[in-house]
Amino acid sequence: MTARLSIKKVFEGSKVGDEVKIAGWIRSVRKNKSFSFIVLNDGSCQDNLQVVINDDLPEYDKASNLLTGSALAVIGKVVESGGKGQSIELQGASIEIYGEADNTYPLQKKGTSLEFLRDNAHLRVRTNLFGAIFRIRHTLAMATHQFFHEQGYYYLNSPIITAYDAEGAGEMFSVSTLDPQKLPTNDKGEIDYSKDYYGRKSFLAVTGQLEAECHAMGLGGVYTFGPTFRSENSNTPRHLSEFWMVEPEVAFADLDDVAELASEYIKRLISEALEKNKAELDFLKQWRKWQKIEDNNHQETLKHVRDSKFKKITYTEAIEILAASGEKFEFRPEWGAELQTEHERFLAEKHFNVPVIVTDYPKSCKAFYMKQNADEEAGKETVRAMDVLVPGVGELIGGSQREDSLEKLEGRIDEMGMDKDVLWWYLDLRKYGSVPHAGFGLGFERAVMYVTGMKNIRDVIAFPRTPKSADF
Amino acid sequence: MTARLSIKKVFEGSKVGDEVKIAGWIRSVRKNKSFSFIVLNDGSCQDNLQVVINDDLPEYDKASNLLTGSALAVIGKVVESGGKGQSIELQGASIEIYGEADNTYPLQKKGTSLEFLRDNAHLRVRTNLFGAIFRIRHTLAMATHQFFHEQGYYYLNSPIITAYDAEGAGEMFSVSTLDPQKLPTNDKGEIDYSKDYYGRKSFLAVTGQLEAECHAMGLGGVYTFGPTFRSENSNTPRHLSEFWMVEPEVAFADLDDVAELASEYIKRLISEALEKNKAELDFLKQWRKWQKIEDNNHQETLKHVRDSKFKKITYTEAIEILAASGEKFEFRPEWGAELQTEHERFLAEKHFNVPVIVTDYPKSCKAFYMKQNADEEAGKETVRAMDVLVPGVGELIGGSQREDSLEKLEGRIDEMGMDKDVLWWYLDLRKYGSVPHAGFGLGFERAVMYVTGMKNIRDVIAFPRTPKSADF
Repeated sequence: MTARLSIKKVFEGSKVGDEVKIAGWIRSVRKNKSFSFIVLNDGSCQDNLQVVINDDLPEYDKASNLLTGSALAVIGKVVESGGKGQSIELQGASIEIYGEADNTYPLQKKGTSLEFLRDNAHLRVRTNLFGAIFRIRHTLAMATHQFFHEQGYYYLNSPIITAYDAEGAGEMFSVSTLDPQKLPTNDKGEIDYSKDYYGRKSFLAVTGQLEAECHAMGLGGVYTFGPTFRSENSNTPRHLSEFWMVEPEVAFADLDDVAELASEYIKRLISEALEKNKAELDFLKQWRKWQKIEDNNHQETLKHVRDSKFKKITYTEAIEILAASGEKFEFRPEWGAELQTEHERFLAEKHFNVPVIVTDYPKSCKAFYMKQNADEEAGKETVRAMDVLVPGVGELIGGSQREDSLEKLEGRIDEMGMDKDVLWWYLDLRKYGSVPHAGFGLGFERAVMYVTGMKNIRDVIAFPRTPKSADF
Repeated sequence: MTARLSIKKVFEGSKVGDEVKIAGWIRSVRKNKSFSFIVLNDGSCQDNLQVVINDDLPEYDKASNLLTGSALAVIGKVVESGGKGQSIELQGASIEIYGEADNTYPLQKKGTSLEFLRDNAHLRVRTNLFGAIFRIRHTLAMATHQFFHEQGYYYLNSPIITAYDAEGAGEMFSVSTLDPQKLPTNDKGEIDYSKDYYGRKSFLAVTGQLEAECHAMGLGGVYTFGPTFRSENSNTPRHLSEFWMVEPEVAFADLDDVAELASEYIKRLISEALEKNKAELDFLKQWRKWQKIEDNNHQETLKHVRDSKFKKITYTEAIEILAASGEKFEFRPEWGAELQTEHERFLAEKHFNVPVIVTDYPKSCKAFYMKQNADEEAGKETVRAMDVLVPGVGELIGGSQREDSLEKLEGRIDEMGMDKDVLWWYLDLRKYGSVPHAGFGLGFERAVMYVTGMKNIRDVIAFPRTPKSADF
């Protein structure tokens, strides 16, 4: 029996006259007098393959009456296509019908809303739109592994379950096997977590950075690419409670090194998508046109970013630019305060129109592990942090050089009232063979939003997890 | 300033006479009269680079007295090595000392035990042994992505937080943001999970398979590679509560197709490790010799498996072979009972001496979603399941063709007393455009154990999570 070929392989490798077997889901059926067109997609690529079946086929009547969403396999001959925009089609010689879809199939109708499709996340991947998004997501994931592998960095699976709060933000999910109806207690009436699975309170990790530092101190350069969790109650188009992060960590590197790494990485993501997903990006442009959503020359913007040198400024310079801009901001830009999204967007979109790397933030805005700059005015202390701001999305990457002095790191932990004891192992990295090192984190879904141009983060992850929503 | 090169790059690309900058951690220092040898490793490869420093260097005294674990950078000239087994070494011209390690450094001593190193998982990656393991792990992860990408499958990040128990085994961790001291209750005094973050009880997923099926029904072929969780109280060298799984799921495929895919995948893992990690595999052999651990011709065995056709037998045939073997088993092999590890090892190691794919298990032993074979004797019903058993490790892969008939799937769910309502979306896959499909799951750490020859699963994941242990 002929082995099945993917439609992608047929378009790429089959010649007119070849006999091939394909299978897929019906996108549409057009009936004529003595023949019908069946348009099939199998998910392997954006393009559909049109199959012509004649009424002398025994399965003709059944097949030509199938509805959108039904599945079938076809053996047939590759022929030149009469239809415009298509090079080849298939002249069906035999058909095997798999499962049908009746008129209750939720994707029968065109133009179903994104909200409706989110409620049907188990099926939405069968649409042209979500097929495009998830094939691009795949390209970006593969490019991520390939890029860091080429740098000589090793993939690290940092732990998901953890006993500490690395960011100190307290927005963590608890993980437990205790029966909440019968919580064990100690003498003082407190919950006795020594009886829990891990013998202590445990959580879902918000980052793999601290463990990545451990491994960078042995392997030189590592990167994580795994799920991270935040339990903040944010119902915005930019937040998920479960999202994937990419976190490279590099020994013998400073902030400038990882700023360069970050810009090369973003450019690589863009250039691979442009190269491998032209059909998908073209479809997204078309979709925005149908939906009357501003395209803003999306592909041209991506090419522009790929070919641009990213702008690098300090936080202090950023504040000066913002203050001198004459722009009406909701929050007044002021040294010492966090940059707001409106500030970030002004810098990346209006002022520079390329991605901007802002470095050296006030110490008070940032996490305990960042390297403190030397010899600064009291009250004006900064740390070697960076944020990479991109037009349309805002902050895509946050990173820093890490404090490699044991004394300074311990000082900062005390200053912030944190518990040194749980971080004994992290301090060991500064006690034994400490080296300059730096790294960053990229929110992978933000990157997928950026490349696809989708505006809601729920539409670039397969099964989004948000407050009150853990369906599927 | 000269840019730092990794030691790997120096070995691969530098010529005698080149001036290079390297950095790394000291493995040993050997002092002579007017010069010293410093042996450095930077994690980029198994091999160390020997640096010769002469006593006319200003940093000589300090550098030649550094202890194992200290870190430094060296600029120097590549010269031919006088030492045996090394082609080149570095004639140091200038030295920059980073962090020192004093004699409290836990890895000062040679021959520290695996248990001791587990307690120092933040540092163990700095040893030759764990460097080797984690570089091999990286190769296997890259090979995984590359292999499935070449098959045309798309990477799926299936959700970690879930509201259902796909395997029905009940061994799940609960995830919550409720304050356990003040649990909200409803009218009946039960805990009111509608107040929890996701508005319902939620857990850590034990598999991504069901969501992978959703995406395979749109994209044709997908694979997951992510963390999964089991809260069983298993303190064995083969179990982790947090482990990584690889789960391909393929539309228009039957059990034979994915059995073939599984054997190709395992062979690919082996051949990439043999090709890319020869130094690491050689080191592991040497390490076993030092530790007086049986090597069992490990590399030869891997080559044998890479070049073998995997044996495929049915469960019924397996029971017959076991019953006729004359072997003394603790559990008598009997049709209808699970295969025990002793049975699996007998088949893979003694009887066939190649990996064995056992198919068509009794329906009662397996999960609800597996395809039921037709026309079988009552009480002898089987499902299209497979387990791939490999010598030394036992079960490495479990998979099945999935039940694609809505009627049969619903029947099985009812039979097993499961709740159809939470799986409405999974049933939809059989309602709309159902197609034959199949997939499997590989425990990634088991694969790393298999390729490295390590006997304890805690030694092939960076930071193991086991009962009472969530350190680092």
